[in-house]
Parts: sequence; structure tokens; C-alpha cells
Amino acid sequence: MDRFDLCVIGSGPAGQKAAVQAAKLGKRVCVIERSEVVGGAAINTGTIPSKSLREAILHLSGFKHRAMFGESYTVKERITIEDLIYWCQHIIKAEIEITRSQLTRNGIQIFRGEGCFTNPEWIGVVHGSDVQGINAEKILIATGSRPARPGHIPFDSTHVVDADALLRLPHLPRTLLVVGGGVIGTEYASMMQALGVKVTLVEGRNRVLDFLDSEIGEALQYHLRRNEMTLRMGEKVVKVEVVEAPANASSHDGRLVEATLESGKRLRAECLLYCVGREGNSKSLELGKIGLSADSRGRIPVNEHYQTEVANVYAVGDVIGFPALASTSMEQGRLAACHMFGYDSETFRELFPYGIYSIPEISMVGWTEDQLTEQDIPFESGVAQYREIARGQLLGDVDGMLKLLVHQDSRAVLGVHCIGSGATEIVHIGQAVMALQGTVDYFINTVFNYPTLAECYKVAALNVSNKLAHM
Amino acid sequence: MDRFDLCVIGSGPAGQKAAVQAAKLGKRVCVIERSEVVGGAAINTGTIPSKSLREAILHLSGFKHRAMFGESYTVKERITIEDLIYWCQHIIKAEIEITRSQLTRNGIQIFRGEGCFTNPEWIGVVHGSDVQGINAEKILIATGSRPARPGHIPFDSTHVVDADALLRLPHLPRTLLVVGGGVIGTEYASMMQALGVKVTLVEGRNRVLDFLDSEIGEALQYHLRRNEMTLRMGEKVVKVEVVEAPANASSHDGRLVEATLESGKRLRAECLLYCVGREGNSKSLELGKIGLSADSRGRIPVNEHYQTEVANVYAVGDVIGFPALASTSMEQGRLAACHMFGYDSETFRELFPYGIYSIPEISMVGWTEDQLTEQDIPFESGVAQYREIARGQLLGDVDGMLKLLVHQDSRAVLGVHCIGSGATEIVHIGQAVMALQGTVDYFINTVFNYPTLAECYKVAALNVSNKLAHM
Repeated sequence: MDRFDLCVIGSGPAGQKAAVQAAKLGKRVCVIERSEVVGGAAINTGTIPSKSLREAILHLSGFKHRAMFGESYTVKERITIEDLIYWCQHIIKAEIEITRSQLTRNGIQIFRGEGCFTNPEWIGVVHGSDVQGINAEKILIATGSRPARPGHIPFDSTHVVDADALLRLPHLPRTLLVVGGGVIGTEYASMMQALGVKVTLVEGRNRVLDFLDSEIGEALQYHLRRNEMTLRMGEKVVKVEVVEAPANASSHDGRLVEATLESGKRLRAECLLYCVGREGNSKSLELGKIGLSADSRGRIPVNEHYQTEVANVYAVGDVIGFPALASTSMEQGRLAACHMFGYDSETFRELFPYGIYSIPEISMVGWTEDQLTEQDIPFESGVAQYREIARGQLLGDVDGMLKLLVHQDSRAVLGVHCIGSGATEIVHIGQAVMALQGTVDYFINTVFNYPTLAECYKVAALNVSNKLAHM
Repeated sequence: MDRFDLCVIGSGPAGQKAAVQAAKLGKRVCVIERSEVVGGAAINTGTIPSKSLREAILHLSGFKHRAMFGESYTVKERITIEDLIYWCQHIIKAEIEITRSQLTRNGIQIFRGEGCFTNPEWIGVVHGSDVQGINAEKILIATGSRPARPGHIPFDSTHVVDADALLRLPHLPRTLLVVGGGVIGTEYASMMQALGVKVTLVEGRNRVLDFLDSEIGEALQYHLRRNEMTLRMGEKVVKVEVVEAPANASSHDGRLVEATLESGKRLRAECLLYCVGREGNSKSLELGKIGLSADSRGRIPVNEHYQTEVANVYAVGDVIGFPALASTSMEQGRLAACHMFGYDSETFRELFPYGIYSIPEISMVGWTEDQLTEQDIPFESGVAQYREIARGQLLGDVDGMLKLLVHQDSRAVLGVHCIGSGATEIVHIGQAVMALQGTVDYFINTVFNYPTLAECYKVAALNVSNKLAHM
């Protein structure tokens, strides 16, 4: 009978980083994974597949190089779903291998099966008719989430799919309805549009990704529309059904999906991608056996140390809800592992960046203009347009921009907002300056490599500074 | 007769930033430019053309996507020099326009001609037979540099060229000798090799780019060789001549260039690119008239405020010598303009990054291992390999790496060294942490967007930290 210091349920980003951290602290660690492969949704169905898809699309569609060679430039005339899947599979396999090797290299044992509680120190691992008991001092729940599949949406893997099923479609649709303008919906909608699919995006709120700074959100919507996407904002889908296609309609199999909106509009396409909400994977854990319960969306409540109401049981990642990003989940895993074994670890909790891999790419850290105005914090903004920066010209990205929000008195950097190539990378420069209490003058007094996108910081900082000189 | 607060001689990066800074301070500013177009060598013959060439090569050669589609993948089967020049011209035009508009938008007057001193407040602008006098309180020399052309090298624009002439070659050579493994020589050598040109690089020292951290320099040489470049290190070219090609040799015009090395070896190729040294453009300034003189390589001595021995005359950029990077030159221009008009401005002089746009790309900031060992500063190093990072896999860059050098006691970050995609961008994250006195723990405690190359910082920092845990 095995006795572990830590048993992690789920091998996604959160579970994996927790397991490795605990192993580095000299603990005996095991991971329970119900899938044949490690990595969780991030590697197998979510982040990595969608990001590899994006890279392949940006390259094969010639999208990145249209400034170089004209609007109609493509690298490959007819892009098939096989072209895309070939590349994605390659990346997914590599990532699974890296994760598995990281776990085994650190002496972490992997059990295949579904984990469920017997009591707070005993986990049953169910695999087919096999049940194995694992005893551990600490338990970490990192079971992740899955797309919500409400009963009134007739998912069928062909005409009506969730994000996990999109990459398993037999062929690319020519028309696509995307329901839900959150991160996943917006990312897939913009990728499909770049591939030449005619996309209509339906979102109940008035803005896609409404946590973004308004200026960036508006810019994103402008670019989506300029790439010929149709946005239906403030609209709710009340009914979805698969119907016969009229004789002259574009359809692979004579059928179309029809979405009826609350406002009475009907929208039709070859395929509908449903991306509204995700649910925590907590049901099969049998939390009741240890006196815990999840909320209506499967999420498990935790305290600031990611500890549940049962002291030796922790939970991290998507299963605890917001922000449910691979990046923050990894950090939660690491912090939980440190806390449960009595090691101190700091974190810059408030300063985590958001990275949105839409086309164009978006990233932000810190406050938005609306939040600052709401809280009566006086700020000035400074903007750098990629088109004014040599690197922007070189990349053919003349639409990108970076915005700094700076306190009018202290000159502290309050927010960094970026849309365009490399946004998710360069945001970390501003994040470091914010975390280490630098002011906007850091950017003014710093030499940046030329030509880089990072120069935007200097241009935006000089822009702020020139405005503040009038105060 | 015009009287200016500042007259800048040269409209390259250094002159331009100085002029704009002075204008923002409310000064009357003019710029003298001897070329038809503004921008200096950076835009017209140096940095920007070589970087646009690099982008075009990376795309057209399919180099970036060979991991995606196999070693023999190319986007365009036969890349002509016209393909490359088309794209470069587009970028150069855009950059000239941006520079011109930035100058005029700030009310800066542009005079066409060669500037020369009459006395410390009077500059003559010579344009053909026209001479115009300009009177200014402060003068800034920002005339840049040009490739050195020693007498024993028979430059002929076809078989023997300097870097400025490379892009004006009538066709791509199939074989190329590059003499000089400095930044310019290494960048062009690696680009030409990526295009399929067979390149031999000859360098007098034992390492290309010998200011790099040894580990990175060795990695670079490894990659150059793996891409089938021949390196001849520690060799000196003593004679260059154009000779008849043997009947079966590859040559566009029946001729080849032959370089004889001190060691007796003879090397032949269709073309020889000579990249040893640059000279400051100071001759035509007639410095003697104001009691100044340049050194044997045309460089003008200045103090720490970029002031020459004549108090109202400043000099910045390539014409003052090391480091002669567009990035540092811009900052020198800005600082000189602030100083001459009595405005304070700080700078992180010691912490400027180097960006090398070779293939692969390289960037560094701070100390190298050798320097630290030399100075008895105890450090530990931590490395992240791109192949372990999801973003590295996505980019198909499995060779890149990032190295952190960290003080063993204080945990201060002493150096950041990166080779691979995005190196010149992500180095700025480490630079900010160094400048703002963060320690390696900043990287450990920070959330990075996933998947990004920036995650390398966390991986490398954990690597250092695990090693230091044994101390």
C-alpha cells in the first residue's frame, strides 16, 4: 500500500506545477490522470491545440505577410483541416512528452484513472473495473473544467459543437456561427475568419471580452469587422436546430444549423460553435464523502491559500473558477504546494497578465481606464502605434498599439494594454516595472533594442510625459 | 539669416531623437542632411535594410516553418534578389516617411547638404555649388559612420563589396566569402546562408561576436555550422583579387574572387563581403576650424555628457564610436539634447541591451560569465531551453535558450543571455528587473502569459533557485 505526501488529481498545468514543486521540496508525490495522456485540457483539447492551430493558420493563410505581399497573398491556396491537424498533433505530442518526462524526472508516480474521495486522506482511483486506493497526507484537486453543454443546445459533433469538438470536425465549414464572445469564442472566431470561413459571432453583452480596456475592446471589434466578421452584440440565442439547407445554399451535407435569437432574428450556417461557460470537473470526485460541495457550476470554494474547508485538501485551476487561465493555474499549483508543506512563497497576485490569442493578439496587465475613472484615480494615457515603430513596419503589423496608463501625480504605471503582434510577450516588460514600483520614467530612461516592439514602451512613455508636462 | 537654438548634423537615429527632444523642450531646431532622404545609415543602408531582408528571408525561405513542415520546406522555390529588394524598399520608404513626418511635425527645419564648421556657432551647408550659413547656439554632430574600405581590398560593386553595396548586387551569388565576424558580418553571413548561399566566414579572432557570453557565442557558432556555414576563425585575409573562374566553377560572369589568408589558404567565391570596421564620418566637418580633431578612425572624443572639447558642440552616435548601435545612439541623442539645454535626464547607461539579428537571433544585457569570474563575483546560472516551453514548440524553435546569471548571495540578476526567436524582445523583461533591483525571485513569483517565450524566465529562475538551495 502506497502512502504519499501529496496526491494530485489531474495532470493539467495546475496539477503538474504543484506536483513538481512538491517533489522539488523532497516530497513523495503522485498524480492521478483519468485520460490516457497527461496534460489536461491545456495540452489536449484547449490552449495548446488552439494556439498551434493559430500558428498554422497565420502561416498557411499568409495572414502575417499580407502587408509584405498584398491583401490576397496566401502561402497555400486551399487549406484543409488535415493541414491544420497535422501540425497541431505534432505539437500536442511534443507537449505530452515534455509533461510526462517532467513528472517522471521528478520521481512523480502517475496513476491512470478517475480519482474519488473515500475520506480526506484516501483516494480511490477507478479505471474500468479496477479500483486502487491511494493514501496521502495532502490532496490537491486540479481536475479542470469542460465546456458547459446546456440541454437546449443539440450538440451533434457535426453541425453543433463545443470548442473541444471543433478540431474533430470532418471538414472546415464555409460558414460558422460562434455563440459566446468570451476568450475561447473570440479566439476561435478570429482564427476561423482568418482561414476564410464566414463567421458570425453572437454575444449577450455589448462587447466581446468585456474585461478589456474599452479602447482595446473597441479596436478588437473594429479589426474583427474589418476582416469581415459579423458581430451580433447584446443578442441571446434562444433556440438552435439543424434544418434542411435550401438548394442553392453552401452546405457539405444538405443541412444547416439555425440559431434563433431572442430579438427574433434567425441565423444560419454550416456549423455552430457553442462557447458559453465552462463547468468545473468536480462531480466524479464524490466531494460529499468528505463534507465538501461544489457550486452549481461545479466550482470548489477555497481560501486565499487554495485550501478547501477540509484542511488537508486543496484545489487549484479551472475547478475553482476565475480567472481559469493556464498561466494563473500553474502559479496556483505552485503556491498551494508551498503552503501545504509550510514553505513561504510570495506572489504578485494582483499583477497577472491576460493573454488573448485572438487575431490580432491582445494582452493586458493592471487597471483599465474605466476602473481607474470609477475609483477616482487620476491618470494620463500614452499610446504608441506599431506603424510608427520600425519593428511594426518590419512585421507588416501597422494596426497594433500599446497603451500605458500612468498616475498623474506619482507617475506610477497603472496599466499596460496592448493589441497586435507580440502583445502577450511584451506585456511582461510593463508588468515587471509595475511589480517593482518603477515609474513611467523607467521607460523614458531605458535603451531598448532597435528595431523591437518593446520600443513602444518608450514612445508611449514620452507621449504620457509630454502630456503631463502641461500639468 | 536663420538663428537656431540647435543645429543637428545628420538625421540618423541619434540626430533625429536629439532634434525631437530639443523641439519638445520648446527649442528652435534644424537638421542638416547630406542625402536626398532622411534617416541616415540606419534607415537607408544599414539596420533597416538588413532587418527587412532578414524578415523576407525568414519568410520566403520557409526557414521559420521547417519544424512545422520538414527540413526542405520553402515558401518560394527560387528567391531572387528582386523578391528581397521589393520588400526592403517598401519598408525603407515607410521609415523615411515616418522620420520625415516626425521631424516636420515637431517644427524641425531640414537643410539638404553637407555640414561643415565655420566657427563654433556657424555651420556652412554645402549642396552642389550652393553654400548656406546656419547660426546656432548649440551644435550636435551626428554624422554616423561608413564601412572602412582599406586600400588593399579591390572593391568593385560586383565581386568585392561592403555591407552598403550588398543589397545592390545584380544577383544573388551562389557562394560568398564574408570577411569579419562582427555584428554586421555575422548577421549578413547567417542571412545569406539561410537563403541557400554557401557562405564562408573569416574572422581574425577565435570567436565571432567575442563580446557575447561564451556559451551563447559557442551555441551561435554551432548553429551557423549546422546550417552548413564554414567558419575560418583566427585567420587573417592578406590579399583579395578577382580571378578567372575555372570552366566547371559556379560563376555568373566567369570570374571569382580569391582571398589569400595569412596561413596560406586560398578561398574562392562568387562574391566577397568585407565587413571589418567602420569609420566615423567626420572628415568633411572641418573640425580643425573649431580646434577639434577626430582619431585615426574618424571618431570624435566626448565627455560623459556627449560634449566635445568645444562646450557648445556635442557629438553622438556612431561618430563617437562604441557601442555604435542605433538603440544607444538614439538615447545619446536624447541625453545630449537634455544636457545642452540644462534639463536633467537619467539613464541606465550600464544596462543597455545588445540585439544581434543573426539567424538565430541573440540578445544580452548585463554581465557575461567570463566577466563575472574575472571580477570574482560569485554567481550561479540557470537555463531554460525553448524546447521545454510550449511557445518554443509552437514556433518550431527547439534550439533557443535563455540563461540567467544570478548572484549567489544577494540573488540579484547579473546578466540575461538569450539566443533564439524573440530574443531581442524578451531580453527587456530581464533588463527591467535588473534596472529596478529585482532579484531572481521576481521571476519565480510572477505569473507569465501561457504560452509565451517569457516563461523561460520562470523556468531559468527555478533552475537557479534549485541550485542555490544546496548552498
